[in-house]
Amino acid sequence: MRNLTLLTDFYELTMMYGYFRQGKTDEIATFDLFFRPFEESNFCIAAGLEQAVEYLENLHFDCEDIDYLRSTGAFGEDFLQTLRDFRFTGSVRAIPEGTVVFPYEPLLIVTAPISQAQLIEAALLNIINHQTLIATKARRVCYAASPASVLEFGLRRAQGPDAAIYGARAAVIGGCSSTSNVLCAEMFGLPPKGTHAHSWVMSFPTEYDAFKAYADTYPDNCLLLVDTYDTLGSGVPNAIKIFDYLKAKGYKPIGIRLDSGDLAYLSKQARRMMDEAGHSDCKIFASSDIDEYVLESLKQQQAAIDIYGVGTKLITSNNTPSLGGVYKLSNLNVDGTDVPKMKISDNPIKVTNPGIKTVYRLFGRDTHKAIADVIALQGETIDDTQPLVITHPLERWKTKEVTDFYAVDLYVDAMKDGVRTLAHKDVYQLQRDCAASLDGFWEEYKRLSNPHDYKVDLSDRLYELKDNLIKEERKTVAK
Amino acid sequence: MRNLTLLTDFYELTMMYGYFRQGKTDEIATFDLFFRPFEESNFCIAAGLEQAVEYLENLHFDCEDIDYLRSTGAFGEDFLQTLRDFRFTGSVRAIPEGTVVFPYEPLLIVTAPISQAQLIEAALLNIINHQTLIATKARRVCYAASPASVLEFGLRRAQGPDAAIYGARAAVIGGCSSTSNVLCAEMFGLPPKGTHAHSWVMSFPTEYDAFKAYADTYPDNCLLLVDTYDTLGSGVPNAIKIFDYLKAKGYKPIGIRLDSGDLAYLSKQARRMMDEAGHSDCKIFASSDIDEYVLESLKQQQAAIDIYGVGTKLITSNNTPSLGGVYKLSNLNVDGTDVPKMKISDNPIKVTNPGIKTVYRLFGRDTHKAIADVIALQGETIDDTQPLVITHPLERWKTKEVTDFYAVDLYVDAMKDGVRTLAHKDVYQLQRDCAASLDGFWEEYKRLSNPHDYKVDLSDRLYELKDNLIKEERKTVAK
Repeated sequence: MRNLTLLTDFYELTMMYGYFRQGKTDEIATFDLFFRPFEESNFCIAAGLEQAVEYLENLHFDCEDIDYLRSTGAFGEDFLQTLRDFRFTGSVRAIPEGTVVFPYEPLLIVTAPISQAQLIEAALLNIINHQTLIATKARRVCYAASPASVLEFGLRRAQGPDAAIYGARAAVIGGCSSTSNVLCAEMFGLPPKGTHAHSWVMSFPTEYDAFKAYADTYPDNCLLLVDTYDTLGSGVPNAIKIFDYLKAKGYKPIGIRLDSGDLAYLSKQARRMMDEAGHSDCKIFASSDIDEYVLESLKQQQAAIDIYGVGTKLITSNNTPSLGGVYKLSNLNVDGTDVPKMKISDNPIKVTNPGIKTVYRLFGRDTHKAIADVIALQGETIDDTQPLVITHPLERWKTKEVTDFYAVDLYVDAMKDGVRTLAHKDVYQLQRDCAASLDGFWEEYKRLSNPHDYKVDLSDRLYELKDNLIKEERKTVAK
Repeated sequence: MRNLTLLTDFYELTMMYGYFRQGKTDEIATFDLFFRPFEESNFCIAAGLEQAVEYLENLHFDCEDIDYLRSTGAFGEDFLQTLRDFRFTGSVRAIPEGTVVFPYEPLLIVTAPISQAQLIEAALLNIINHQTLIATKARRVCYAASPASVLEFGLRRAQGPDAAIYGARAAVIGGCSSTSNVLCAEMFGLPPKGTHAHSWVMSFPTEYDAFKAYADTYPDNCLLLVDTYDTLGSGVPNAIKIFDYLKAKGYKPIGIRLDSGDLAYLSKQARRMMDEAGHSDCKIFASSDIDEYVLESLKQQQAAIDIYGVGTKLITSNNTPSLGGVYKLSNLNVDGTDVPKMKISDNPIKVTNPGIKTVYRLFGRDTHKAIADVIALQGETIDDTQPLVITHPLERWKTKEVTDFYAVDLYVDAMKDGVRTLAHKDVYQLQRDCAASLDGFWEEYKRLSNPHDYKVDLSDRLYELKDNLIKEERKTVAK
């Protein structure tokens, strides 16, 4: 396993050294990792926790790391010596991968000596921001493609090897049926997908020769790319000849792939040509610069496409290629006393929620559909035998009474005192978890355009704590 | 070093198996890696060659890789056995990192047995697309910031660890002075940058206490983040007190960092306050959702910012998060005879250039500024003692006579017969190479808005070859 301990911003290390010099190394800090409203989607699909936990389990400074840090001249030798035995000894509560999550809900809540909690900020954000971004995009793409299925094809346009590997993993959690990326498939036990490229066709004297050679190599898995020269004039007719040839030999050909041109028109024409030739069991795959908006348009045009390969725009989350997750101090335990912390800002969306928290999701007792989420202080319980009044977190005059509900705490323990407690889960299990989480929401929240606004409330106790801290802070600054 | 041999699309492997079954494994293929017109920028900065060569040098199938491929059921045992001794034995000519490159110019020209050349397609594209994208974005950001310098701060928002590490490398090639990413700094010998975060300030009873503690830890490298509570009301006044304290002790404080709010206004106010307090030697750093357009606006407003930290929008190339690089077969040597290959498409920008090629850049003999590039067939020379007529590659009626020029071949040998021939270069050397390449272009080509159109011509011989192949292909398809 790669040692990613130095995958951190330099200021995390200078702060660690500062905490050390100030004797604060062992103050117990709690940080929340959450995202603010995200322009691409009203909710996200949590992903990346597995890799975050692996990173924390493996956290250690090699001799070369320490030598390197010494060479920067920024750290005292006494501090550098402490790094030799450095391990993550903290605890992490987290919303499991595949869960629908909303802005301000902590995906991870890290409680650890401040020096440790600080070091891991940048890598945790990197891992969770990336995979949550791509799982969220994949959910949108798969939603638009449904009932057609989606394969992840983005390796060549991903932002480096990890973006391809972990992006494909996140895409499968978000709903893609598999990936073309062989290394990702090997690492996560997925069936790798793909057949041949234009270069295969171009390396033979004719398109027919190329198709024939492919069919002879893979008679029972024959999917032919038909757009190298002329899709309807040459590609589809040649493919039909090959399908006739294969069927005569007792094989069942898979179908064709379209990779350019007007996919709606070409797919309908190709469907008709294949049906007329007796190959209505052959499928049509399509790829070519597809995203959720292209998919909605293709669906409206009744394109005859069974399976989509989606590359660039999924693997980069093309319209919004970053999720603005942040990691903010919410509590400091000094000498056994909890001191809730928050960041004040003139911009209300940048004010953080203080204290150690948890999130409840309220479901209708009959419908089992989500009604609202409540961000509460840890230890607060929600009495679901009584009606509950929930309040908009910023606009306090907006209230709603909820009845006949049950409340579910969204968190699991991912690490306790430095030891992994997160269950290992197969990526397809996480995909099923994601489908189940999505199934807990009405369609109105899930549509791609103008979805209904989902309510995420603060509990009264959390709201009061926040309000008091703001007032105190104002007084201090005024002095 | 990580084994990335399986970082490939599955169809590369099924094609390899097909070539093997067809007895084509050792046909010598030439592939061009190039990008088509890129909406974000009229030219790109080539980057990623070093990692591409490392990948090729390290290419091999481990036993587990072969076992895994066996488990897919897609390959015969005879083929799997050949993978045990698989190595890259081909050659790569390439445009060096840091060079200004234009659409259709092959960044890499790979000549190798077709099976090898095919396997490496996806990983080469992944590496080169990513780093070229980020170096290009960094060039734009640094151009807009100049004369202020730019630090790369994007780790937490990058698309996974590699995107952060190699993105920061590419950003430095494109002009960033360094990065906050410690692992990248260690790997590439860069000075890591950073001081402290809001959480440092929040972990102390008051902002002043936090600043004082930081100054005591780093008295000779004191840069204070002033926007945790109230930038002008509390942050800057507290920083000034600390700078007074440090100067009284004989230290030279560095300055302040602004991370939110109206950077133009706040920087000018902070500058005035620091100047009035006798700290005109202290610098102002700024970060907060910056890209080249924000930088142009800040410059216009005469913001008093000396150094920028640029994160999310640089490390993801926010507006256009992928470079559409492709890898296309251009020649096949069958039994010692070269057969130029091209992909025909109804879309003229998707038609490829056939044959083994090279690119010449023509410079004015007096100005040493670039006049035009000429994509030619390998072996063609350009007689710079005669006037040369260059022609627009698509619109043939557009011609221009060039005189008083000299022609420079843009390529170096990166690998010969499987052995690395690329010189190892320090990242700052590549940054200087990039600055020198940019210096070879007039300002009109480099401005961010509506840059002048740079001419990339095809040589007459290449144009005729292409024209003939299109005509032949039309005839074949017509039959």
